[in-house]
Amino acid sequence: MAESPITPRGQDFAAWYQDVVLSGDMAEPAEIVKGCMVIKANGYAVWEVLQRELDGRFKATGHQNLYFPLLIPESFLKKEAEHVEGFSPELAVVTIAGGKDLEEPYVIRPTSETIIGHFFAKWIQSYRDLPMLCNQWANVMRWELRTRLFLRTSEFLWQEGHTAHSNHDESLAEVLRMLDIYADVAEGVMAMPVIKGGKTQSEKFAGALKSYSIEAMMQNGLALQAGTSHDLGQNFGKAFDVKFQGKEGQLDYVWQTSWGVSTRLIGGLIMTHSDDKGLVLPPKLAPVKSVLVPIYRKDAERAQVLEAAHRIAAEVGAKVDDREGQSPGAKFFHWERRGVPVVLELGPRDLAAGKIVVKRRDTGVKEPVGQDELAARLPATLEAMQGDLLKAAWQRLRDNTVLANSIGEVESILAGATAEKGGGKFVMAHIKDDPQCDARIREFKATVRNIPLVDEFDGPGKCIVTGEPVDRRAVIAKAY
Amino acid sequence: MAESPITPRGQDFAAWYQDVVLSGDMAEPAEIVKGCMVIKANGYAVWEVLQRELDGRFKATGHQNLYFPLLIPESFLKKEAEHVEGFSPELAVVTIAGGKDLEEPYVIRPTSETIIGHFFAKWIQSYRDLPMLCNQWANVMRWELRTRLFLRTSEFLWQEGHTAHSNHDESLAEVLRMLDIYADVAEGVMAMPVIKGGKTQSEKFAGALKSYSIEAMMQNGLALQAGTSHDLGQNFGKAFDVKFQGKEGQLDYVWQTSWGVSTRLIGGLIMTHSDDKGLVLPPKLAPVKSVLVPIYRKDAERAQVLEAAHRIAAEVGAKVDDREGQSPGAKFFHWERRGVPVVLELGPRDLAAGKIVVKRRDTGVKEPVGQDELAARLPATLEAMQGDLLKAAWQRLRDNTVLANSIGEVESILAGATAEKGGGKFVMAHIKDDPQCDARIREFKATVRNIPLVDEFDGPGKCIVTGEPVDRRAVIAKAY
Repeated sequence: MAESPITPRGQDFAAWYQDVVLSGDMAEPAEIVKGCMVIKANGYAVWEVLQRELDGRFKATGHQNLYFPLLIPESFLKKEAEHVEGFSPELAVVTIAGGKDLEEPYVIRPTSETIIGHFFAKWIQSYRDLPMLCNQWANVMRWELRTRLFLRTSEFLWQEGHTAHSNHDESLAEVLRMLDIYADVAEGVMAMPVIKGGKTQSEKFAGALKSYSIEAMMQNGLALQAGTSHDLGQNFGKAFDVKFQGKEGQLDYVWQTSWGVSTRLIGGLIMTHSDDKGLVLPPKLAPVKSVLVPIYRKDAERAQVLEAAHRIAAEVGAKVDDREGQSPGAKFFHWERRGVPVVLELGPRDLAAGKIVVKRRDTGVKEPVGQDELAARLPATLEAMQGDLLKAAWQRLRDNTVLANSIGEVESILAGATAEKGGGKFVMAHIKDDPQCDARIREFKATVRNIPLVDEFDGPGKCIVTGEPVDRRAVIAKAY
Repeated sequence: MAESPITPRGQDFAAWYQDVVLSGDMAEPAEIVKGCMVIKANGYAVWEVLQRELDGRFKATGHQNLYFPLLIPESFLKKEAEHVEGFSPELAVVTIAGGKDLEEPYVIRPTSETIIGHFFAKWIQSYRDLPMLCNQWANVMRWELRTRLFLRTSEFLWQEGHTAHSNHDESLAEVLRMLDIYADVAEGVMAMPVIKGGKTQSEKFAGALKSYSIEAMMQNGLALQAGTSHDLGQNFGKAFDVKFQGKEGQLDYVWQTSWGVSTRLIGGLIMTHSDDKGLVLPPKLAPVKSVLVPIYRKDAERAQVLEAAHRIAAEVGAKVDDREGQSPGAKFFHWERRGVPVVLELGPRDLAAGKIVVKRRDTGVKEPVGQDELAARLPATLEAMQGDLLKAAWQRLRDNTVLANSIGEVESILAGATAEKGGGKFVMAHIKDDPQCDARIREFKATVRNIPLVDEFDGPGKCIVTGEPVDRRAVIAKAY
């Protein structure tokens, strides 16, 4: 397959993103299935690394994986009023099965609170059954009109945690613990800084008491909600009659949480680090961390270079690209577009000098290294790259975060923020958690992203819409 | 949750199976979604081990994981005549999405040959693009009337490999390579012996040129098709117009394969090793290989025993069951039903003697072992148990395999094989691969399971139905 050019970011950010996804072997649109995508080999391999990192943390905090049915009786969604209102416009409905019209249709899960609520009611009788800490790795379906690879697709892959507790202190602690885990993976593994905070009531999950999110800033300054954790209170407990007998014999509804991250993270990853040459993967997420490209012209050189290439690669755990019929240049181009963090170049002259060239994907800097030093230098280079990517992303987040003290100021900053050419901003302003305030911000095609858990600014102030006192500044931005 | 009793195998094998699945925390029926199940924590953890074992082998043989859409346009299935005939009675159909009736309905994938065929046609142009070696981990849906946990459910989890090649020699080699991998995991990991063989034309996958299977024998003598690998020939290549240009410039259709194993394997695992006390897991598949149960009566003993328990468990990688408010007896019962291969018992007297008791789940034998020997003895015990389980299963397979030289003999053996009380047999007979011969066997509520790749019997003979010469004996049995 021929390699097509990548649109520069500064020219058209959306086109650049699509080009990077396609040329990086990450995903492609599945046009024949509306709004769906094929996750390709490199994209799925990144998802596997993310799954491993997340799953290990879930298990270390006492969660178990279970698997619940894909199909949910349509009536289940109606049991929680806000929930059905939020999700019904996006449902895919199965009306025929086994050649017959179904008496009650099934919906393909858009999320699993309802069906899991049903089973929790069967499984939970006593405080001894609590906490119940479940997670599910699954596909879900939300029929979307405007889709974008990884960021918003009709079907996506995700994990959804669902837990039940005997009191609200404990369930709220769980909500925040999982938000911390998401932030830890975003920053520590993906090198993508995030702001943890509470969503406004207008923006919360349909059926939750309160939602929390991690928000990341993309290279164009747009916000991406990268993960959410919901305090469901007793809403689903009441809807599905999930009761437990407490230590003193009293009956009460359980307190639930749910939390999820999805293949959307991969979109965030791409828009955080990639460049005009294509995909850039932080080393900790890269399925292949380094590739060695052997260089030779004459047949006489070939055997010698290949022998050394395989020997050195085996020592340091690199992959050798020994494909025939491809020039070294074509190979460099290939791995660059796939975001491999380090490419090693080995030619006859390097061989004679006992050297090998180490090239970093992010900076493009080439450095000749003694072959005997490589086993130490390669991990150090990968670690440095991981750190530099995070540092650059933090810098960008700080540089593009501005304060505003009036609604007019918010408007003019957002008007200047033409995200398709870069220039989007996170505007920090005092604003009340009130639907009328959210509505005011939406007039600027922006939203209140979240109200940070940790205030890094100037504390309390007056709401720029209502004038009422609020605790701290919120993040306002245009978003995916 | 109270622990209910397990029906003995000899009394009612089907009830025993259901009891073992439920009491082992493996799965439960999701009655509100027809024919579906919830895979519970222990069941999903076993599936994760199986996934890891399989996935490692797929990657080591050059396959990459991708993910294709859940929904398939209904018209796609009709492109391959046998395929649609085989699958259409079992389809779940989405007719409404996003609040609107769909112009063309989608089916939930029963398997993905068709949609993958569509993408192969986009991705493959030249022999240089071949072989294309893909695998997908996914859920699939086949609307089944009579379901049984793990063995046959409307939704199940599986992997489906899909590959394309430039010639039939190569695609057939792939088909047999993957069959070998399945047999290797079944025997080497699950301790479940299998017979590799070709399915008859009547029993092949809808759309294949030829199918191959691994067949295992359950404790009641019934056969279980535990995995299949299909030689698709050029059937799907032609249906989806997947053409490539060869080295000499000629255009040809690709040669494809597909192969899959599913959560059905877990049903086979259970019916191979479990006993009247509940689940038995072979050590290599057990998510938890050993649990240490501390025993103490007085508070004075408690601290000392628990300290030693945690110290010893940490050394050997065992889990400590230090739950309060549960007697040691209740704990032994708990882990026995969940199939944990080895339980370690540590009480004050053991402590004083520097010993610890090692109890094997399969034999129930208890052995006091010096605490300083445990680090060496535990892995040896687990290895011995793994070997013994495989040996016992092989022995059962051999003991219940009989030869028959006439159709009458086949009938009388199968009539005596009342599988619900055990006593099912694998009947080895010469029979032609011909639909009329398959039909004759189905009169006895049995099927030709497969024709073994390796003949372990007496070579050629005459077909017991038609009298025509055939190459070797086939496996005939009642089956799940």
